[in-house]
Amino acid sequence: MSAEETNSPSSTRTRVRRVPQRGRYDRATLEAIVDDAYVCHIAFADSEGVHNIPTACWREGNHLYVHGSNGSRMLKLAADGAQVCITVMHLDGLVLARSAFNHSMNYRCAIIYGVFEVVPESQKAATLDAFMETLAPGRSRHARPGNAKELAATTVLRIALDEASCKVRTGGPNDDEEDLALPVWAGVLPLALAPRAPIAAASPGETPCYVLDWREAAKA
Amino acid sequence: MSAEETNSPSSTRTRVRRVPQRGRYDRATLEAIVDDAYVCHIAFADSEGVHNIPTACWREGNHLYVHGSNGSRMLKLAADGAQVCITVMHLDGLVLARSAFNHSMNYRCAIIYGVFEVVPESQKAATLDAFMETLAPGRSRHARPGNAKELAATTVLRIALDEASCKVRTGGPNDDEEDLALPVWAGVLPLALAPRAPIAAASPGETPCYVLDWREAAKA
Repeated sequence: MSAEETNSPSSTRTRVRRVPQRGRYDRATLEAIVDDAYVCHIAFADSEGVHNIPTACWREGNHLYVHGSNGSRMLKLAADGAQVCITVMHLDGLVLARSAFNHSMNYRCAIIYGVFEVVPESQKAATLDAFMETLAPGRSRHARPGNAKELAATTVLRIALDEASCKVRTGGPNDDEEDLALPVWAGVLPLALAPRAPIAAASPGETPCYVLDWREAAKA
Repeated sequence: MSAEETNSPSSTRTRVRRVPQRGRYDRATLEAIVDDAYVCHIAFADSEGVHNIPTACWREGNHLYVHGSNGSRMLKLAADGAQVCITVMHLDGLVLARSAFNHSMNYRCAIIYGVFEVVPESQKAATLDAFMETLAPGRSRHARPGNAKELAATTVLRIALDEASCKVRTGGPNDDEEDLALPVWAGVLPLALAPRAPIAAASPGETPCYVLDWREAAKA
């Protein structure tokens, strides 16, 4: 997918084939789905078969970033050029139709194909700060920064959002015309990954804005 | 993994290698993680590479079930014996430590390896009813059941929970001793996939218990 708006897939494997009208190939949809996510699922293969590992992710510009221990098998393979397929998915609701067959789910899903590249040592600290800012705005100025040993033990990888596509379902049930009069409740049971009240550790330090915001959000 | 309790992995590829103390190999943990999920991520490979597709899932006994259109590439490959790696993951919170390096996430993750088998025609209707019961208890007696054409268009697959393992993180931050006195807020920002108020379709029919329950849960 190029950085400008586009309405067609960037490769045969990113073309949405099942229910193609749910396919989205524009940049704004892709970025919004990635930016709403704390976690992605990374599929890759090695001599033991196909694997599928969830891990934290964030976006800067045209790249999705992940990080972890240098000892991680997945990161070692990914840094070595393994082909990956990364999925970011939000489940937004259960869709209850009058007929069993027309039940569905509302969701936003992004799928990214490609190969990771290793983020150089000189950029690691800044990009890990950017990651923390996506989790808790302002926190990268409060938490103790990574020291040389910690940074050296951490691998940061990024993958371009070039070969990617999205699939999105929204709205209510699509019932067959002849089912509409059936006396069956129909509608959507919405779902969202929602904050709960923060749990402070012992002697947690002064309460920052992002924790207060979280507390308010948990009440809403 | 056998049906009885066990504390060791069933294969080399289900052994948790990173932070091995988070590995769980008992049946109760596995079933609870799968039963809490609406969706799993299925990784598989074909001539175009590795793919990673989210899809609805449910459990009956020792099997995880998925379903979809006969036309689905993933279901056709899976029905044909493709090796898969299925991941079910719940993000339970962000863990904020005093140091950037010790930040973490709380999660429950199950990974299942193996090959799907096709659920025979004669068992499809019953197992799809079981699926609907996991989504909305009692609804399989209210919604119009699948007719012969709809059932014939649907593939149902199942995979044994035999080669599987879990990885779980709970609790607060694990700070380094020398960081404990830093004036930085530390603790957990819990997350949960939570119900929102139901959205009824036009002329939705009588409101059943599972919708009322959802409405109450959304207020909590």
